[in-house]
Amino acid sequence: MKNKSIIFTKRPKDFPTNENFSVQDDIVPVLNDNQILLKTVYVSVDPYLRGRMNNVKSYIPPFEVGEPMKSTIVAEVIESKNKNYSVGSHLYGMLDWKTFQVSDGTGLFPIPKDLAPLSSYLGVLGVTGLTAYFGLLEIGKPKENETLLVSGAAGAVGITVSQIGKIKGCRVVGIAGSDEKVDRLKNKFGLDAAINYKNNKNLLNELKTACPNGVDVYFDNVGGEVSDTVFYLTNNFCRIPVCGAISQYNQPTLPVGPRNNPFIISRRIKMQGFIVFDYSDKYLEAQMQLASWMKEGKVTLEETIIEGFENIPDAFLGLFNGKNFGKMIVKI
Amino acid sequence: MKNKSIIFTKRPKDFPTNENFSVQDDIVPVLNDNQILLKTVYVSVDPYLRGRMNNVKSYIPPFEVGEPMKSTIVAEVIESKNKNYSVGSHLYGMLDWKTFQVSDGTGLFPIPKDLAPLSSYLGVLGVTGLTAYFGLLEIGKPKENETLLVSGAAGAVGITVSQIGKIKGCRVVGIAGSDEKVDRLKNKFGLDAAINYKNNKNLLNELKTACPNGVDVYFDNVGGEVSDTVFYLTNNFCRIPVCGAISQYNQPTLPVGPRNNPFIISRRIKMQGFIVFDYSDKYLEAQMQLASWMKEGKVTLEETIIEGFENIPDAFLGLFNGKNFGKMIVKI
Repeated sequence: MKNKSIIFTKRPKDFPTNENFSVQDDIVPVLNDNQILLKTVYVSVDPYLRGRMNNVKSYIPPFEVGEPMKSTIVAEVIESKNKNYSVGSHLYGMLDWKTFQVSDGTGLFPIPKDLAPLSSYLGVLGVTGLTAYFGLLEIGKPKENETLLVSGAAGAVGITVSQIGKIKGCRVVGIAGSDEKVDRLKNKFGLDAAINYKNNKNLLNELKTACPNGVDVYFDNVGGEVSDTVFYLTNNFCRIPVCGAISQYNQPTLPVGPRNNPFIISRRIKMQGFIVFDYSDKYLEAQMQLASWMKEGKVTLEETIIEGFENIPDAFLGLFNGKNFGKMIVKI
Repeated sequence: MKNKSIIFTKRPKDFPTNENFSVQDDIVPVLNDNQILLKTVYVSVDPYLRGRMNNVKSYIPPFEVGEPMKSTIVAEVIESKNKNYSVGSHLYGMLDWKTFQVSDGTGLFPIPKDLAPLSSYLGVLGVTGLTAYFGLLEIGKPKENETLLVSGAAGAVGITVSQIGKIKGCRVVGIAGSDEKVDRLKNKFGLDAAINYKNNKNLLNELKTACPNGVDVYFDNVGGEVSDTVFYLTNNFCRIPVCGAISQYNQPTLPVGPRNNPFIISRRIKMQGFIVFDYSDKYLEAQMQLASWMKEGKVTLEETIIEGFENIPDAFLGLFNGKNFGKMIVKI
């Protein structure tokens, strides 16, 4: 049995490429007492990982050059010297990009058998779904009949936010990067309107048509020029959960843009950043709610699945080219 | 008896000048039933008036060219055909820049006799004090031993915010525009540190020294480069009441600056704009608290008083050149 790792070899200056990673062969480790051997089943790739590739102190430590990459992974226990973990059971949590690895279980969460698809613990029931849930409900606080505008609406978080917005009775408008995504958001997910920001039309005019009553909640996954335009549509007391800024992640320095303070002041806008970990004491409650919405078909598991361990870097890089609809996952 | 008005003659493109105003002679109006004749005593000039000189719909309508300027004014009732208002009593509220004017009292507030200096209804007990009070306490929510950083600290709002911050047990650090202001903030108002942002030193380094534990609440009156620098010092969960952006008010278009979203996300910053009118149901409670702090000497009435009706425009223009310490007021 051979083991493989994906090593972080070089910090990117702007857009990451395959040059930043290398695949290494390794031995499969031998277990000590109390340890379990995990086989990677599904690997989550997420935009926020780009931030960890910079050597910057943040809410989560940066990746170390020469060490394996990490992300949230669903793994199967294939050998166990720890009585709490039985062979054949599944766990998820922050793990190395390796086909096999040892753990004592610290920081990993057990996956209940047959409750929901395994990959959903990287999507709706995982960090992605929880991010959508807490950002929208705790900061955005959407009310019935309000307009919720979502940027990056076809992304993993965006699509869940949009669906929760519909459950809460909002007019939901999505912004995405292709006509195909826009069609799917409207026709499969029932968004009231969706706009392809790359279609060379006037985004402000399109947003005005799509949001005739202005914007009450703007769930922002992208930042940059799209968000600059949205400011013109904000209603008084608009809430902006600032979830991501994918348009900026590959810029070597902070890009510049209009200073939007006059909007923030005169329209009493609240912009608030958040990290899902801050709500960890409420995860279980949120997962139960999300699982129940999934069961009722109100929130669906939307995934783009890439196969093969060696393709993890490509799947990750694809996030910055809009390759995914919903959650991007690699199946090993 | 002659009446005088200051007319708004021309919208400024950037910095306003005396060219935007003209003084006109007028007759003193004759009263109808139910009306009162008001003599202007004190005129408030405030940075937010600059916004009303633009032809832009906002939380308060723009000034009309050819009409008199308006701001908050303390006036004496010198003639009355309304039994609710007796001659010799004082009122305050939004009034025209005129030496005499008629009113039926709508929108004006009576001033209790001998409770506090008349001009305090334009300062600590007026819109200025209330802005400081609600912005700091409702949005900033400072806790004991936290660091409160105030930009525009020597301005009317800033100095009140700083004093309330001390009452709440914060380390209070002010940013102002001259060494004289900095000295006064430290020596007269007991701020823990104060920095002259115009002293050509490295503002980031100076702020690091002044805020060794980072910044928990940043009360922002100025926006622009000063605020860009502050972002580097923000602690996790920093609150930023966005009160003003005086650095931007005279710019014909939105200036550009760094996109600070990565700070907002990773440090879970809350930026929130506000307008004092939103808290009008709590004015009385706040005024009582502020009056009591004034009595105890914990919040002082700090004023720069200019004399003479014709000097109102100069007093207003002086706000953009840092001419005031505390509240800028014109005494007629």
